[in-house]
Amino acid sequence: MEIKLIGLEGIPLVKSGDDISKIIKEAILNSDYDLCDGDIILIAETLISKAEGNIIKLDDIVPSDKAVEVAKICKKDPKLVEVILQNSTEIVEVGPNFIVTETKQGFVCANAAIDESNVEDGLATPVPENPDQSAREIREFLESEFEKDLAVIITDTQGRAFRIGAIGTAIGCSGINPLWVRVGEKDLYGRELETTEIATADELASAASLIMGQADEGLPVVIISGFSAFNHLRKTDSDIRPLLRPKEFDVFRR
Amino acid sequence: MEIKLIGLEGIPLVKSGDDISKIIKEAILNSDYDLCDGDIILIAETLISKAEGNIIKLDDIVPSDKAVEVAKICKKDPKLVEVILQNSTEIVEVGPNFIVTETKQGFVCANAAIDESNVEDGLATPVPENPDQSAREIREFLESEFEKDLAVIITDTQGRAFRIGAIGTAIGCSGINPLWVRVGEKDLYGRELETTEIATADELASAASLIMGQADEGLPVVIISGFSAFNHLRKTDSDIRPLLRPKEFDVFRR
Repeated sequence: MEIKLIGLEGIPLVKSGDDISKIIKEAILNSDYDLCDGDIILIAETLISKAEGNIIKLDDIVPSDKAVEVAKICKKDPKLVEVILQNSTEIVEVGPNFIVTETKQGFVCANAAIDESNVEDGLATPVPENPDQSAREIREFLESEFEKDLAVIITDTQGRAFRIGAIGTAIGCSGINPLWVRVGEKDLYGRELETTEIATADELASAASLIMGQADEGLPVVIISGFSAFNHLRKTDSDIRPLLRPKEFDVFRR
Repeated sequence: MEIKLIGLEGIPLVKSGDDISKIIKEAILNSDYDLCDGDIILIAETLISKAEGNIIKLDDIVPSDKAVEVAKICKKDPKLVEVILQNSTEIVEVGPNFIVTETKQGFVCANAAIDESNVEDGLATPVPENPDQSAREIREFLESEFEKDLAVIITDTQGRAFRIGAIGTAIGCSGINPLWVRVGEKDLYGRELETTEIATADELASAASLIMGQADEGLPVVIISGFSAFNHLRKTDSDIRPLLRPKEFDVFRR
Protein backbone atom coordinates (compact mmCIF):
# COMPACT_ATOMS: atom_id res chain seq x y z
CA MET A 1 0.00 0.00 0.00
CA GLU A 2 1.33 3.42 -0.97
CA ILE A 3 0.20 7.00 -0.38
CA LYS A 4 1.64 9.97 -2.26
CA LEU A 5 1.93 13.54 -0.95
CA ILE A 6 2.33 15.99 -3.82
CA GLY A 7 3.22 19.65 -3.25
CA LEU A 8 1.41 21.67 -5.90
CA GLU A 9 3.84 24.04 -7.63
CA GLY A 10 3.01 27.48 -8.99
CA ILE A 11 0.57 28.82 -6.38
CA PRO A 12 1.14 32.61 -6.50
CA LEU A 13 1.14 35.01 -3.56
CA VAL A 14 -2.61 35.42 -3.03
CA LYS A 15 -4.33 38.83 -2.75
CA SER A 16 -7.73 39.76 -1.36
CA GLY A 17 -10.44 38.78 -3.82
CA ASP A 18 -8.42 36.09 -5.61
CA ASP A 19 -10.37 32.93 -6.49
CA ILE A 20 -8.55 30.08 -4.73
CA SER A 21 -10.61 27.44 -6.56
CA LYS A 22 -9.51 28.74 -9.97
CA ILE A 23 -5.90 29.21 -8.79
CA ILE A 24 -5.75 25.57 -7.65
CA LYS A 25 -7.44 24.37 -10.85
CA GLU A 26 -4.84 26.20 -12.96
CA ALA A 27 -1.96 24.89 -10.84
CA ILE A 28 -3.23 21.32 -11.27
CA LEU A 29 -3.65 21.77 -15.03
CA ASN A 30 -0.15 23.24 -15.28
CA SER A 31 1.34 20.37 -13.24
CA ASP A 32 2.19 16.95 -14.62
CA TYR A 33 -0.17 15.39 -12.07
CA ASP A 34 -3.51 13.90 -13.13
CA LEU A 35 -6.14 14.25 -10.41
CA CYS A 36 -7.74 10.91 -9.37
CA ASP A 37 -10.96 9.88 -7.64
CA GLY A 38 -10.28 9.84 -3.91
CA ASP A 39 -7.61 12.54 -3.98
CA ILE A 40 -7.58 14.82 -0.95
CA ILE A 41 -6.55 18.46 -1.46
CA LEU A 42 -5.12 20.16 1.63
CA ILE A 43 -4.90 23.96 1.69
CA ALA A 44 -3.06 26.14 4.22
CA GLU A 45 -5.58 28.40 5.97
CA THR A 46 -3.53 31.55 5.34
CA LEU A 47 -4.24 31.17 1.64
CA ILE A 48 -8.01 31.17 2.28
CA SER A 49 -7.91 34.05 4.77
CA LYS A 50 -5.90 36.23 2.39
CA ALA A 51 -8.19 35.50 -0.57
CA GLU A 52 -11.24 36.23 1.61
CA GLY A 53 -9.66 39.54 2.57
CA ASN A 54 -9.72 38.35 6.17
CA ILE A 55 -6.63 40.41 6.98
CA ILE A 56 -6.32 42.86 9.85
CA LYS A 57 -4.12 45.97 9.90
CA LEU A 58 -2.98 46.05 13.52
CA ASP A 59 -2.37 49.83 13.45
CA ASP A 60 -6.11 50.36 12.83
CA ILE A 61 -7.10 48.40 15.95
CA VAL A 62 -8.15 50.27 19.10
CA PRO A 63 -7.69 47.87 22.02
CA SER A 64 -10.50 47.63 24.56
CA ASP A 65 -9.84 47.95 28.30
CA LYS A 66 -10.16 44.14 28.52
CA ALA A 67 -7.53 43.71 25.78
CA VAL A 68 -5.14 46.11 27.55
CA GLU A 69 -5.64 44.20 30.80
CA VAL A 70 -5.12 40.77 29.17
CA ALA A 71 -2.13 42.11 27.20
CA LYS A 72 -0.44 42.97 30.50
CA ILE A 73 -0.81 39.34 31.62
CA CYS A 74 0.40 37.71 28.37
CA LYS A 75 2.92 40.45 27.53
CA LYS A 76 1.60 40.84 23.95
CA ASP A 77 0.67 43.87 21.82
CA PRO A 78 -2.75 45.07 23.11
CA LYS A 79 -3.85 45.52 19.47
CA LEU A 80 -3.06 41.87 18.73
CA VAL A 81 -4.82 40.82 21.94
CA GLU A 82 -7.88 42.85 20.87
CA VAL A 83 -7.97 40.92 17.59
CA ILE A 84 -7.54 37.63 19.50
CA LEU A 85 -10.45 38.49 21.81
CA GLN A 86 -12.65 39.62 18.88
CA ASN A 87 -12.07 36.22 17.27
CA SER A 88 -12.66 34.23 20.48
CA THR A 89 -15.64 33.20 22.56
CA GLU A 90 -13.62 32.42 25.70
CA ILE A 91 -10.13 32.68 27.21
CA VAL A 92 -9.09 29.12 28.14
CA GLU A 93 -5.69 29.90 29.70
CA VAL A 94 -3.59 33.07 29.79
CA GLY A 95 -0.17 33.70 31.33
CA PRO A 96 3.22 35.25 30.62
CA ASN A 97 3.91 35.04 26.85
CA PHE A 98 0.87 32.94 25.97
CA ILE A 99 -2.89 33.12 25.56
CA VAL A 100 -5.05 30.12 24.66
CA THR A 101 -8.66 30.80 23.69
CA GLU A 102 -11.62 29.08 22.08
CA THR A 103 -12.13 30.70 18.69
CA LYS A 104 -15.50 31.61 17.18
CA GLN A 105 -15.18 28.42 15.13
CA GLY A 106 -14.65 26.30 18.26
CA PHE A 107 -10.89 25.68 18.06
CA VAL A 108 -8.93 25.76 21.32
CA CYS A 109 -5.51 27.13 20.38
CA ALA A 110 -2.90 29.81 21.06
CA ASN A 111 -3.53 33.40 19.90
CA ALA A 112 -6.92 32.36 18.43
CA ALA A 113 -4.80 31.01 15.54
CA ILE A 114 -4.10 34.60 14.43
CA ASP A 115 -1.18 34.33 12.02
CA GLU A 116 1.49 37.01 11.64
CA SER A 117 3.69 34.95 9.32
CA ASN A 118 3.47 35.03 5.53
CA VAL A 119 1.61 38.32 5.45
CA GLU A 120 3.10 41.80 5.02
CA ASP A 121 4.45 43.52 8.12
CA GLY A 122 1.84 45.02 10.44
CA LEU A 123 -0.85 42.65 9.17
CA ALA A 124 -2.40 39.64 10.85
CA THR A 125 -4.64 36.94 9.42
CA PRO A 126 -7.31 35.27 11.56
CA VAL A 127 -8.43 31.82 10.48
CA PRO A 128 -11.07 31.86 7.71
CA GLU A 129 -14.55 32.86 8.86
CA ASN A 130 -16.01 29.47 7.93
CA PRO A 131 -13.32 26.95 6.91
CA ASP A 132 -15.90 24.18 6.28
CA GLN A 133 -17.78 26.39 3.82
CA SER A 134 -14.52 27.44 2.12
CA ALA A 135 -13.57 23.76 1.80
CA ARG A 136 -17.01 22.88 0.42
CA GLU A 137 -16.95 25.64 -2.23
CA ILE A 138 -13.48 24.64 -3.43
CA ARG A 139 -14.34 20.92 -3.45
CA GLU A 140 -17.57 21.40 -5.40
CA PHE A 141 -15.80 23.58 -7.99
CA LEU A 142 -12.86 21.18 -8.46
CA GLU A 143 -15.15 18.11 -8.53
CA SER A 144 -17.23 19.63 -11.33
CA GLU A 145 -14.17 20.87 -13.25
CA PHE A 146 -12.24 17.58 -13.06
CA GLU A 147 -15.22 15.19 -12.69
CA LYS A 148 -13.57 13.36 -9.76
CA ASP A 149 -14.72 12.56 -6.21
CA LEU A 150 -12.47 14.70 -4.02
CA ALA A 151 -12.08 15.91 -0.45
CA VAL A 152 -10.74 19.31 0.62
CA ILE A 153 -9.20 19.97 4.03
CA ILE A 154 -8.18 23.44 5.31
CA THR A 155 -5.11 23.16 7.54
CA ASP A 156 -3.45 25.22 10.25
CA THR A 157 -0.36 24.61 12.37
CA GLN A 158 -1.22 24.45 16.07
CA GLY A 159 0.53 23.61 19.34
CA ARG A 160 -0.64 20.98 21.80
CA ALA A 161 -0.84 20.45 25.54
CA PHE A 162 1.85 18.17 27.01
CA ARG A 163 4.09 18.18 23.92
CA ILE A 164 6.47 20.74 22.42
CA GLY A 165 6.15 21.79 18.79
CA ALA A 166 3.20 22.57 16.57
CA ILE A 167 1.71 20.13 14.03
CA GLY A 168 -0.52 20.36 10.99
CA THR A 169 -4.15 20.37 12.14
CA ALA A 170 -7.44 20.29 10.21
CA ILE A 171 -9.71 23.33 10.74
CA GLY A 172 -12.20 22.71 7.94
CA CYS A 173 -13.14 19.86 5.66
CA SER A 174 -15.55 18.80 2.94
CA GLY A 175 -16.13 15.48 1.19
CA ILE A 176 -14.69 13.28 3.92
CA ASN A 177 -15.64 12.46 7.49
CA PRO A 178 -12.77 13.89 9.58
CA LEU A 179 -13.21 11.24 12.30
CA TRP A 180 -12.76 7.52 11.59
CA VAL A 181 -14.89 5.67 14.13
CA ARG A 182 -13.60 2.09 14.17
CA VAL A 183 -15.53 0.76 17.17
CA GLY A 184 -16.74 -2.75 16.40
CA GLU A 185 -14.04 -3.51 13.84
CA LYS A 186 -11.72 -6.46 14.55
CA ASP A 187 -8.04 -6.35 15.45
CA LEU A 188 -5.36 -8.75 14.15
CA TYR A 189 -6.57 -11.37 16.63
CA GLY A 190 -10.20 -11.04 15.58
CA ARG A 191 -11.07 -9.24 18.79
CA GLU A 192 -13.46 -6.32 18.55
CA LEU A 193 -11.78 -2.95 18.99
CA GLU A 194 -13.17 -1.18 22.02
CA THR A 195 -12.98 2.57 21.45
CA THR A 196 -10.83 3.49 18.51
CA GLU A 197 -11.62 6.87 17.07
CA ILE A 198 -8.95 8.21 14.73
CA ALA A 199 -8.77 11.92 13.84
CA THR A 200 -8.01 11.08 10.22
CA ALA A 201 -8.35 14.68 8.99
CA ASP A 202 -5.71 15.78 11.52
CA GLU A 203 -3.39 12.97 10.42
CA LEU A 204 -3.87 14.05 6.80
CA ALA A 205 -3.16 17.68 7.82
CA SER A 206 0.04 16.65 9.61
CA ALA A 207 1.14 14.64 6.59
CA ALA A 208 0.53 17.63 4.29
CA SER A 209 2.45 19.88 6.69
CA LEU A 210 5.60 17.84 5.93
CA ILE A 211 5.48 19.45 2.47
CA MET A 212 3.85 22.82 3.19
CA GLY A 213 6.51 23.75 5.68
CA GLN A 214 6.12 26.92 7.69
CA ALA A 215 8.58 29.38 6.21
CA ASP A 216 9.24 30.25 2.58
CA GLU A 217 8.53 26.91 0.90
CA GLY A 218 5.59 28.46 -0.94
CA LEU A 219 3.79 25.11 -1.22
CA PRO A 220 0.47 25.88 0.53
CA VAL A 221 -1.52 23.26 -1.41
CA VAL A 222 -0.80 19.53 -1.10
CA ILE A 223 -2.57 16.63 -2.82
CA ILE A 224 -2.73 13.32 -0.92
CA SER A 225 -3.38 10.43 -3.30
CA GLY A 226 -3.93 6.76 -2.54
CA PHE A 227 -5.55 7.03 0.90
CA SER A 228 -7.46 3.74 0.85
CA ALA A 229 -10.06 4.71 3.46
CA PHE A 230 -11.39 7.57 1.30
CA ASN A 231 -14.45 5.66 0.10
CA HIS A 232 -15.20 4.38 3.60
CA LEU A 233 -15.03 7.95 4.98
CA ARG A 234 -16.70 9.63 1.99
CA LYS A 235 -19.27 12.17 3.21
CA THR A 236 -20.38 15.03 0.98
CA ASP A 237 -21.93 17.08 3.80
CA SER A 238 -19.08 16.67 6.27
CA ASP A 239 -17.62 19.38 8.51
CA ILE A 240 -14.88 19.61 11.15
CA ARG A 241 -17.18 19.48 14.21
CA PRO A 242 -16.67 15.75 14.95
CA LEU A 243 -13.05 16.62 15.91
CA LEU A 244 -13.97 19.38 18.38
CA ARG A 245 -14.30 18.12 21.96
CA PRO A 246 -17.20 19.84 23.70
CA LYS A 247 -15.99 21.84 26.70
CA GLU A 248 -18.12 19.83 29.12
CA PHE A 249 -16.33 16.62 28.06
CA ASP A 250 -12.82 18.07 28.19
CA VAL A 251 -11.09 17.31 31.48
CA PHE A 252 -8.32 19.77 30.65
CA ARG A 253 -10.73 22.74 30.61
CA ARG A 254 -12.23 24.12 33.74
CA MET B 1 7.98 18.09 -4.32
CA GLU B 2 6.70 14.63 -3.54
CA ILE B 3 6.78 12.36 -0.48
CA LYS B 4 5.90 8.66 -0.58
CA LEU B 5 4.44 6.62 2.28
CA ILE B 6 5.01 2.90 1.70
CA GLY B 7 3.36 0.23 3.85
CA LEU B 8 5.83 -2.63 4.20
CA GLU B 9 4.12 -5.93 3.35
CA GLY B 10 4.89 -9.30 4.92
CA ILE B 11 5.57 -8.36 8.54
CA PRO B 12 4.50 -11.50 10.48
CA LEU B 13 2.69 -11.59 13.84
CA VAL B 14 5.62 -10.97 16.18
CA LYS B 15 6.41 -13.16 19.20
CA SER B 16 8.54 -12.49 22.25
CA GLY B 17 12.22 -12.74 21.32
CA ASP B 18 11.77 -12.05 17.63
CA ASP B 19 14.39 -9.78 16.06
CA ILE B 20 12.48 -6.80 14.65
CA SER B 21 15.57 -5.48 12.85
CA LYS B 22 15.99 -8.73 10.90
CA ILE B 23 12.23 -9.02 10.25
CA ILE B 24 12.18 -5.51 8.75
CA LYS B 25 15.35 -6.19 6.74
CA GLU B 26 13.77 -9.34 5.25
CA ALA B 27 10.50 -7.53 4.51
CA ILE B 28 12.42 -4.78 2.68
CA LEU B 29 14.48 -7.31 0.69
CA ASN B 30 11.30 -9.22 -0.23
CA SER B 31 9.55 -6.01 -1.30
CA ASP B 32 10.03 -4.30 -4.66
CA TYR B 33 11.16 -1.14 -2.84
CA ASP B 34 14.80 -0.05 -2.86
CA LEU B 35 15.74 1.77 0.35
CA CYS B 36 17.21 5.27 -0.23
CA ASP B 37 19.37 7.66 1.79
CA GLY B 38 17.03 9.82 3.87
CA ASP B 39 14.30 7.20 4.19
CA ILE B 40 12.45 7.23 7.50
CA ILE B 41 11.18 3.91 8.88
CA LEU B 42 8.21 4.18 11.23
CA ILE B 43 7.35 1.22 13.45
CA ALA B 44 4.20 0.72 15.54
CA GLU B 45 5.19 0.43 19.21
CA THR B 46 3.16 -2.77 19.72
CA LEU B 47 5.58 -4.58 17.42
CA ILE B 48 8.53 -3.55 19.61
CA SER B 49 6.79 -4.33 22.90
CA LYS B 50 5.80 -7.80 21.72
CA ALA B 51 9.30 -8.60 20.43
CA GLU B 52 10.79 -7.36 23.71
CA GLY B 53 8.39 -9.64 25.58
CA ASN B 54 6.97 -6.54 27.22
CA ILE B 55 3.57 -8.19 27.55
CA ILE B 56 1.53 -8.42 30.74
CA LYS B 57 -0.94 -11.21 31.62
CA LEU B 58 -3.63 -9.29 33.48
CA ASP B 59 -4.77 -12.40 35.43
CA ASP B 60 -1.33 -12.55 37.09
CA ILE B 61 -1.60 -8.99 38.40
CA VAL B 62 -2.48 -8.38 42.04
CA PRO B 63 -3.83 -4.83 42.29
CA SER B 64 -2.56 -2.64 45.11
CA ASP B 65 -4.94 -0.77 47.42
CA LYS B 66 -4.11 2.40 45.44
CA ALA B 67 -5.02 0.66 42.15
CA VAL B 68 -8.33 -0.56 43.63
CA GLU B 69 -9.09 2.96 44.82
CA VAL B 70 -8.20 4.58 41.47
CA ALA B 71 -10.10 1.86 39.58
CA LYS B 72 -13.26 2.87 41.45
CA ILE B 73 -12.83 6.43 40.17
CA CYS B 74 -12.07 5.57 36.53
CA LYS B 75 -14.33 2.50 36.44
CA LYS B 76 -11.58 0.27 34.97
CA ASP B 77 -10.31 -3.22 35.83
CA PRO B 78 -8.15 -2.81 38.99
CA LYS B 79 -5.57 -5.14 37.43
CA LEU B 80 -5.27 -2.87 34.38
CA VAL B 81 -5.08 0.16 36.67
CA GLU B 82 -2.28 -1.55 38.63
CA VAL B 83 -0.32 -1.98 35.38
CA ILE B 84 -1.03 1.65 34.45
CA LEU B 85 0.27 2.87 37.82
CA GLN B 86 3.35 0.60 37.63
CA ASN B 87 4.18 2.20 34.27
CA SER B 88 3.53 5.77 35.44
CA THR B 89 5.32 8.32 37.57
CA GLU B 90 2.23 10.48 38.19
CA ILE B 91 -1.54 10.58 37.69
CA VAL B 92 -2.27 13.75 35.67
CA GLU B 93 -6.08 13.50 35.56
CA VAL B 94 -8.49 10.72 36.53
CA GLY B 95 -12.28 10.56 36.32
CA PRO B 96 -15.17 8.36 35.20
CA ASN B 97 -13.94 6.16 32.31
CA PHE B 98 -10.54 7.78 31.88
CA ILE B 99 -7.12 8.02 33.49
CA VAL B 100 -4.31 10.20 32.12
CA THR B 101 -0.85 9.70 33.60
CA GLU B 102 2.75 10.58 32.91
CA THR B 103 4.51 7.37 31.90
CA LYS B 104 7.98 6.32 33.04
CA GLN B 105 9.21 7.54 29.66
CA GLY B 106 7.64 10.98 30.17
CA PHE B 107 4.58 10.70 27.91
CA VAL B 108 1.35 12.27 29.15
CA CYS B 109 -1.40 10.04 27.77
CA ALA B 110 -4.44 7.91 28.58
CA ASN B 111 -3.97 4.52 30.28
CA ALA B 112 -0.17 5.03 30.29
CA ALA B 113 -0.42 3.99 26.62
CA ILE B 114 -1.12 0.40 27.72
CA ASP B 115 -2.49 -1.32 24.62
CA GLU B 116 -5.10 -4.10 24.76
CA SER B 117 -5.57 -4.27 20.98
CA ASN B 118 -3.59 -6.55 18.65
CA VAL B 119 -2.51 -8.86 21.46
CA GLU B 120 -4.22 -12.09 22.58
CA ASP B 121 -7.13 -11.80 24.99
CA GLY B 122 -6.19 -11.14 28.62
CA LEU B 123 -2.86 -9.60 27.62
CA ALA B 124 -1.79 -5.96 27.64
CA THR B 125 1.30 -4.34 26.13
CA PRO B 126 2.88 -1.31 27.76
CA VAL B 127 4.96 0.95 25.52
CA PRO B 128 8.54 -0.29 24.98
CA GLU B 129 10.85 0.21 27.97
CA ASN B 130 13.13 2.54 26.00
CA PRO B 131 11.70 3.43 22.57
CA ASP B 132 14.69 5.66 21.70
CA GLN B 133 17.10 2.78 22.30
CA SER B 134 14.90 0.38 20.30
CA ALA B 135 14.85 2.91 17.45
CA ARG B 136 18.63 3.35 17.65
CA GLU B 137 19.35 -0.39 17.53
CA ILE B 138 17.06 -0.93 14.53
CA ARG B 139 18.46 2.12 12.71
CA GLU B 140 22.10 1.11 13.23
CA PHE B 141 21.39 -2.44 12.03
CA LEU B 142 19.47 -1.34 8.91
CA GLU B 143 22.01 1.40 8.10
CA SER B 144 24.87 -1.11 8.16
CA GLU B 145 22.91 -3.75 6.23
CA PHE B 146 21.71 -1.39 3.49
CA GLU B 147 24.51 1.21 3.69
CA LYS B 148 22.04 4.11 3.72
CA ASP B 149 21.50 7.06 6.07
CA LEU B 150 18.15 6.31 7.72
CA ALA B 151 15.95 7.44 10.59
CA VAL B 152 13.71 5.21 12.70
CA ILE B 153 10.65 6.47 14.58
CA ILE B 154 8.60 4.35 17.01
CA THR B 155 4.93 5.38 16.87
CA ASP B 156 1.88 5.10 19.09
CA THR B 157 -1.70 6.34 18.64
CA GLN B 158 -2.66 8.82 21.34
CA GLY B 159 -5.56 11.13 22.15
CA ARG B 160 -5.26 14.87 22.70
CA ALA B 161 -6.73 17.55 24.92
CA PHE B 162 -9.36 19.77 23.25
CA ARG B 163 -9.87 17.53 20.20
CA ILE B 164 -11.66 14.23 19.63
CA GLY B 165 -9.87 11.29 18.06
CA ALA B 166 -6.40 9.84 18.47
CA ILE B 167 -3.51 10.48 16.05
CA GLY B 168 -0.19 8.86 15.27
CA THR B 169 2.42 10.17 17.72
CA ALA B 170 6.18 9.62 17.96
CA ILE B 171 7.39 7.95 21.19
CA GLY B 172 10.95 7.18 20.17
CA CYS B 173 13.34 8.21 17.42
CA SER B 174 16.86 7.82 16.14
CA GLY B 175 18.77 9.45 13.29
CA ILE B 176 16.62 12.56 13.06
CA ASN B 177 15.92 15.52 15.33
CA PRO B 178 12.19 15.15 16.21
CA LEU B 179 11.75 18.93 16.58
CA TRP B 180 12.33 21.33 13.69
CA VAL B 181 13.30 24.67 15.22
CA ARG B 182 12.78 27.29 12.50
CA VAL B 183 13.26 30.45 14.55
CA GLY B 184 15.27 32.94 12.51
CA GLU B 185 14.26 31.54 9.12
CA LYS B 186 12.43 33.88 6.73
CA ASP B 187 8.79 33.70 5.65
CA LEU B 188 7.49 34.34 2.12
CA TYR B 189 7.81 38.09 2.72
CA GLY B 190 11.39 37.80 3.94
CA ARG B 191 10.33 38.48 7.51
CA GLU B 192 12.01 36.46 10.22
CA LEU B 193 9.78 33.79 11.75
CA GLU B 194 9.27 34.45 15.44
CA THR B 195 8.76 31.15 17.22
CA THR B 196 8.09 28.32 14.85
CA GLU B 197 8.88 24.93 16.32
CA ILE B 198 7.44 22.03 14.36
CA ALA B 199 7.07 18.57 15.92
CA THR B 200 8.24 16.91 12.72
CA ALA B 201 8.50 13.43 14.23
CA ASP B 202 4.85 13.64 15.31
CA GLU B 203 3.83 14.78 11.80
CA LEU B 204 5.75 11.85 10.32
CA ALA B 205 4.05 9.49 12.82
CA SER B 206 0.60 10.84 11.89
CA ALA B 207 1.41 10.41 8.20
CA ALA B 208 2.50 6.80 8.78
CA SER B 209 -0.67 6.15 10.79
CA LEU B 210 -2.70 6.75 7.62
CA ILE B 211 -1.25 3.44 6.39
CA MET B 212 -0.75 1.52 9.62
CA GLY B 213 -4.39 1.85 10.58
CA GLN B 214 -5.52 0.64 13.96
CA ALA B 215 -7.37 -2.59 13.31
CA ASP B 216 -6.39 -5.56 11.16
CA GLU B 217 -4.42 -3.85 8.40
CA GLY B 218 -1.28 -5.67 9.51
CA LEU B 219 0.98 -2.91 8.17
CA PRO B 220 2.92 -1.89 11.33
CA VAL B 221 5.99 -0.68 9.42
CA VAL B 222 5.85 2.30 7.06
CA ILE B 223 8.68 3.84 5.04
CA ILE B 224 8.50 7.59 4.36
CA SER B 225 10.67 8.53 1.39
CA GLY B 226 11.42 11.96 -0.08
CA PHE B 227 11.16 14.09 3.08
CA SER B 228 13.40 16.95 1.97
CA ALA B 229 14.26 18.20 5.48
CA PHE B 230 15.94 14.90 6.39
CA ASN B 231 19.48 16.19 5.91
CA HIS B 232 18.71 19.42 7.77
CA LEU B 233 17.31 17.44 10.72
CA ARG B 234 19.89 14.62 10.55
CA LYS B 235 21.11 13.80 14.10
CA THR B 236 22.62 10.41 14.86
CA ASP B 237 22.30 10.74 18.66
CA SER B 238 18.75 12.07 18.68
CA ASP B 239 15.97 11.05 21.07
CA ILE B 240 12.32 11.98 21.64
CA ARG B 241 12.89 14.30 24.62
CA PRO B 242 12.75 17.58 22.62
CA LEU B 243 9.01 16.86 22.08
CA LEU B 244 8.17 16.34 25.76
CA ARG B 245 7.01 19.53 27.48
CA PRO B 246 8.40 19.71 31.01
CA LYS B 247 5.62 19.75 33.61
CA GLU B 248 6.69 23.14 34.96
CA PHE B 249 6.18 24.70 31.50
CA ASP B 250 2.81 23.06 30.81
CA VAL B 251 -0.09 25.34 31.69
CA PHE B 252 -2.51 22.44 31.33
CA ARG B 253 -0.91 20.52 34.20
CA ARG B 254 -1.29 21.55 37.81
